[in-house]
Amino acid sequence: MRPPAARVGDGVAAIDTPALVIDLDAMEGNLARMAEFARAHRVRLRPHAKTHKSATIAALQMRAGAVGVCVQKLGEAEALADGGVSDIFISNQIIDPAKLARVAALAQRVTLAMAVDSVPGVQRLAAALKAAGSRIGVFVEIDVGQGRCGVAPAAAGALAHQVVSHGLPLAGLQAYHGRAQHLRSAAEREAAVRHAASLVRSAQASITAAGIACPLVTGAGTGTFAFEAASGAWQELQPGSYLFMDRDYADNEPTPNAPAFEHALFVKSQVVSRGFSHAVIDAGHKAHAIDAGLPRVRGRDHEFANGGDEHGILRARGDALPELGDTVWLVPGHCDPTVNLHDHYIAVRDGLDWGAVEAVWPVDARGRLD
Amino acid sequence: MRPPAARVGDGVAAIDTPALVIDLDAMEGNLARMAEFARAHRVRLRPHAKTHKSATIAALQMRAGAVGVCVQKLGEAEALADGGVSDIFISNQIIDPAKLARVAALAQRVTLAMAVDSVPGVQRLAAALKAAGSRIGVFVEIDVGQGRCGVAPAAAGALAHQVVSHGLPLAGLQAYHGRAQHLRSAAEREAAVRHAASLVRSAQASITAAGIACPLVTGAGTGTFAFEAASGAWQELQPGSYLFMDRDYADNEPTPNAPAFEHALFVKSQVVSRGFSHAVIDAGHKAHAIDAGLPRVRGRDHEFANGGDEHGILRARGDALPELGDTVWLVPGHCDPTVNLHDHYIAVRDGLDWGAVEAVWPVDARGRLD
Repeated sequence: MRPPAARVGDGVAAIDTPALVIDLDAMEGNLARMAEFARAHRVRLRPHAKTHKSATIAALQMRAGAVGVCVQKLGEAEALADGGVSDIFISNQIIDPAKLARVAALAQRVTLAMAVDSVPGVQRLAAALKAAGSRIGVFVEIDVGQGRCGVAPAAAGALAHQVVSHGLPLAGLQAYHGRAQHLRSAAEREAAVRHAASLVRSAQASITAAGIACPLVTGAGTGTFAFEAASGAWQELQPGSYLFMDRDYADNEPTPNAPAFEHALFVKSQVVSRGFSHAVIDAGHKAHAIDAGLPRVRGRDHEFANGGDEHGILRARGDALPELGDTVWLVPGHCDPTVNLHDHYIAVRDGLDWGAVEAVWPVDARGRLD
Repeated sequence: MRPPAARVGDGVAAIDTPALVIDLDAMEGNLARMAEFARAHRVRLRPHAKTHKSATIAALQMRAGAVGVCVQKLGEAEALADGGVSDIFISNQIIDPAKLARVAALAQRVTLAMAVDSVPGVQRLAAALKAAGSRIGVFVEIDVGQGRCGVAPAAAGALAHQVVSHGLPLAGLQAYHGRAQHLRSAAEREAAVRHAASLVRSAQASITAAGIACPLVTGAGTGTFAFEAASGAWQELQPGSYLFMDRDYADNEPTPNAPAFEHALFVKSQVVSRGFSHAVIDAGHKAHAIDAGLPRVRGRDHEFANGGDEHGILRARGDALPELGDTVWLVPGHCDPTVNLHDHYIAVRDGLDWGAVEAVWPVDARGRLD
């Protein structure tokens, strides 16, 4: 593991590069605005911890009113439970019997829920829980437009019947529309969620027709949560990226009636080589994920070109190029996989220009893809 | 850190998913073929350890005849030195004084070299080495077509003069053409290296004109090394990916007179959800890097679609879709950043279909982007 890039009390200038840096003031503002939105709209907030993978940040979110967190991976759930997180929903499919035995073991130390989308998934989960004497909440996942996991809405009742007839408690519906999050116009995102809401309602009707109660519908992300909340079809929101706001989400047209979020996550880098028309920084795509496009340079107008695994290349545009040794702050293209590349957060108070390191937090579930 | 996905002696079926798996027979064949190529062409081999980040694999390469390894990052060098690697070339620029003090400290326990491409870089390196009483080899980096780090060939003599007048030993020229590696046709790659060779010769002339000896030219990658070797301009080769062969390199037209390498690195994944026309696996781009494009499914003809951070989506093409719970082996699009996503290698003997785990190796320099 890499040693932390700074110590508490260091000035920003002393942070080794490349480093994953949180602007604490910006993050806390984002955290408070989302919590307030959920309160005002009377929906539960269960932020997605796949974004931050940090028990410390999960605790901040829960202190602000979140009922718990979501994760995508069992390994993330285990790492966050080790860090004291007490209420976790694995919003994903697990069907390996050895993993399901770990789910059952984890359920004995935290409040746990999981999604299912197949009969074998329900059968194996029930067998693992029975063997361990454990109990978890079970959400039937429906496909509301993502085209990935989840049953067709009309099949929700039959799967819910499988859940309850295996003696498992139906916690509700998992209904997340990932593709809708980055539709650039607010109108397109609204239309996608309107259609997803109609699918949620037909899934609920299918469950009701099976004589089963559906206590809760959970879903939504940073790009659409205001539409899910307004629809009345969802009772719980799962946004993750609002905490950090990456370049990709900032490229969306803002959603009316949704709070605005600031960039709070940066990669600090340094110019290590300088040509007459370009500057090379020491952060490539091993330091920031590019699956959703290249990063933006904070506060400066430069063209950013991918320089490979360990380098980024800047060319002049509105602003003059930085010089050898200068600091360059990147706004990552996509925050979740960027976080997963780093062992620690360097959390800075009072801004990136004059602030100091207030905390160093491990990325507890970094690499927990299991 | 994630616990290892398997134990020594486990059958392949018992490897938890997603996991980074080496086919040892294939890797050893690749390793031997490259070592034999270098011997036959009387060039030194210094494989790039940015690919594997493993002291164990570096030792295997050196036992097969490599003179040492390259790395791109000081943190990688430190991690490999901790693992017993004795001869390391940092083929990159470092200009931060705190990092240069670490370079000087590291030089007291391994044979170390580094690249420079600026006068401040030389000055700061010299100061750090003097303060510690350390000595390293210094390579002047020239830009031979990559457009990233490196001085213009005509400026090599002036920078070499700076090196020697600061009392540092000029080890030679670093001349790597990254862009040439993935030009798809062999003829294009050959032309790019022919031009690079002319730039190497003009840089050498510039150094000779400054009255300085240039002992060695080092460079080349998996896509071009046979051309560098044939040119006579390079005396040391730095390929890295030959060891594992990713999908991107396999998409190149083969180089005449170069050994062929097999895929030796895979991500084991499992089908966790199944629709009527698609299958979803538990490995997304947090498990395999997609900067050089999507992975290929080993031994099966499926369309692969990016399913996000934690999922991959397969659609039928030549072969029928796998069923829920089935194993799917991915050939990563790009091996280097894929390795960096994992904490361990699971090294399998006797093939991926019927083999067993022979070793579990840590990815020693995983996350060492410092």
